[in-house]
Amino acid sequence: MRTQVGIIGAGPAGLLLSHLLHLRGIDSVVLEARSRDYVERRVRAGVLEHPTAELLREVGLGARMDLEGMVHHGISLRFDGADHRIGFDELLGRSITVYGQQEVVKDLIAARLEAGGELLFEVSEVAVHGLTSDRPAITFTDAEGRPRELACAVIAGCDGFHGVSRQAIPETALTVHEHEYPFAWLGILAEAPPVREELIYTHHERGFALYSMRSPELTRLYLQVDPDEEIESWPDDRIWTELHARLALGGESGLHEGPLREKGISTMRSFVASPLRYGRLFLAGDAAHIVPPTGAKGMNLAVGDVHLLARALERLLLHNESDLVESYSDTALRRVWRAEHFSWFMTSMLHRFPGNDPFQRQLQLAQLRYTAESTAAATSLAENYVGLPFS
Amino acid sequence: MRTQVGIIGAGPAGLLLSHLLHLRGIDSVVLEARSRDYVERRVRAGVLEHPTAELLREVGLGARMDLEGMVHHGISLRFDGADHRIGFDELLGRSITVYGQQEVVKDLIAARLEAGGELLFEVSEVAVHGLTSDRPAITFTDAEGRPRELACAVIAGCDGFHGVSRQAIPETALTVHEHEYPFAWLGILAEAPPVREELIYTHHERGFALYSMRSPELTRLYLQVDPDEEIESWPDDRIWTELHARLALGGESGLHEGPLREKGISTMRSFVASPLRYGRLFLAGDAAHIVPPTGAKGMNLAVGDVHLLARALERLLLHNESDLVESYSDTALRRVWRAEHFSWFMTSMLHRFPGNDPFQRQLQLAQLRYTAESTAAATSLAENYVGLPFS
Repeated sequence: MRTQVGIIGAGPAGLLLSHLLHLRGIDSVVLEARSRDYVERRVRAGVLEHPTAELLREVGLGARMDLEGMVHHGISLRFDGADHRIGFDELLGRSITVYGQQEVVKDLIAARLEAGGELLFEVSEVAVHGLTSDRPAITFTDAEGRPRELACAVIAGCDGFHGVSRQAIPETALTVHEHEYPFAWLGILAEAPPVREELIYTHHERGFALYSMRSPELTRLYLQVDPDEEIESWPDDRIWTELHARLALGGESGLHEGPLREKGISTMRSFVASPLRYGRLFLAGDAAHIVPPTGAKGMNLAVGDVHLLARALERLLLHNESDLVESYSDTALRRVWRAEHFSWFMTSMLHRFPGNDPFQRQLQLAQLRYTAESTAAATSLAENYVGLPFS
Repeated sequence: MRTQVGIIGAGPAGLLLSHLLHLRGIDSVVLEARSRDYVERRVRAGVLEHPTAELLREVGLGARMDLEGMVHHGISLRFDGADHRIGFDELLGRSITVYGQQEVVKDLIAARLEAGGELLFEVSEVAVHGLTSDRPAITFTDAEGRPRELACAVIAGCDGFHGVSRQAIPETALTVHEHEYPFAWLGILAEAPPVREELIYTHHERGFALYSMRSPELTRLYLQVDPDEEIESWPDDRIWTELHARLALGGESGLHEGPLREKGISTMRSFVASPLRYGRLFLAGDAAHIVPPTGAKGMNLAVGDVHLLARALERLLLHNESDLVESYSDTALRRVWRAEHFSWFMTSMLHRFPGNDPFQRQLQLAQLRYTAESTAAATSLAENYVGLPFS
């Protein structure tokens, strides 16, 4: 088996890269460990930055997003017993689109299949070879259990934080920057109509809470919890009680309750591996970097990476120019670090840190109040949230 | 002895309060432990915010400041081997004035004496009495060694961090927020002409450095040092070597060396006592709050406090209305916390923190680069630096 770009991972990064390469006349094959059904149902991120939504439109993937996605013109910061709105439209004339990652994945899979793209699901024992040669290859076992080899000019590692791509790079060739936060997020997807049209980020003495939604029928809610909490100690009743308490304004949260369709705890981590290239292997998305979800940046960073990578691979494979693949890592990492900082900033401003002294708690409130009162500070938050230009 | 407002401390806070009260027809007496000569030579802060300079002009104290002060239209952040200017004029149409605290003090003393104001220097054994009664008093020993008592309607504690005023408040009536930083500043005043017209805040892997000036003949320079350093281990040669290294651009700092007129190490601390009122005692300036010097906010906060306090005391003493004295603490503390946050922000962005992991060091750089590149972020820094409105 042979292709120009062997792509490991059928998440937003790998699928979009395959699509962008196809539009440039470059062949690729996408290998995915999970089933198509699994990746099309996997609930993850849900906020598309302005540049992400624009790119999806430009490359013919905007139709269903524009029909079903919910355009949000702002968010609210809830603290001191009141809502403080950051209006993206007023400040920047731009907006975000709430459209689940799994919907983006569905659209991408449909587009790739319609164009005759090769997507291999449920592959296993994926391994990469010859990364520093000019004939790299990927070996794997296909869904039918047959051992296969994919020869390619370039490999794109889009297989997430736990994937094999990054781990195939010698430790000495990678620098890792990492930061753990002293809390986790308990997230639920509830069959209950959202009560507000925009997201609410809540700073409360009991801890952070986030009100969001996935559709006119589905509310998505998050609670800051201790990092070692087990989901078993959070029966639905306890979750709702805590949500009502943290999201209360004037004694009432106004939340509609409903059956939980999903419920899980995720740790909060910042992680950056650099460089994003090792020989003929290029990393993109979660394979190379993780942000805490507070800034809604994860999927958007993956999109930014592959936007750059597709251009760089076009230069390399169609024009035999290596300038953009050589600058890919530095260029992508500048935007990654901006988002790492923003995600850390949002996380630090909004959560309750167990180790913080009273002075630091007052600083958080001072930061929140200033962000709500100053046009410059609100614009700074807004331009990061709505998304800085890809490059 | 009797007056309307007994003021403890002849720093910028106490003297300006006395002046503002005089303009409103309210009598005061200022008590100061040091000599007039000492307070007129004490080199401290040197940056006047826009609202501070405007207030000084409005109350007839702007003449020498406008003649001798140096108006600065921006500052530079030096990192990544280059200068990144934050232009206050372009961003806000406002500026700062570099004019030493001791010059403000000289102007205030001259104005008070010309108006027949009573300033008692070199007093000792100052104690306050009857704070929760409506007849408070200050006892002290005057410069001639005679015990004296000053009866007053109100006492203003403007006697700095180590003064007696705050310490006279029962511990149970005060909440203290405090934060220590893991470094100190070594500051020098050198008889050397400044080489640049604006301040340079330098983030360097060897530690923070600040280039500033006090006059066309005097350069003021600071170095981040360990908090337990002794000044004896910093001979002049070592200081210059370190300054050249941290301030170097393209291998050269460009600094002019010259004899040191002053040299000292000061610790970095954030401190806020609240409320600013206990009965008939009102705290203002360093007596109630300390900021690290990175944001140049100390003297400006004192000015903001007494600006509010003078209005509040006018309402109380001339119109018998207590609304403004009752809101004084909350109103003043909002601006204080904004400045505490800004000073912490500048300190955190610019210094090398011994405990920081590589991720946190990258965040600092990401913050610096963003501040230099984003108009919103630069405006946010600028509006804080130039000074938010007094109220």
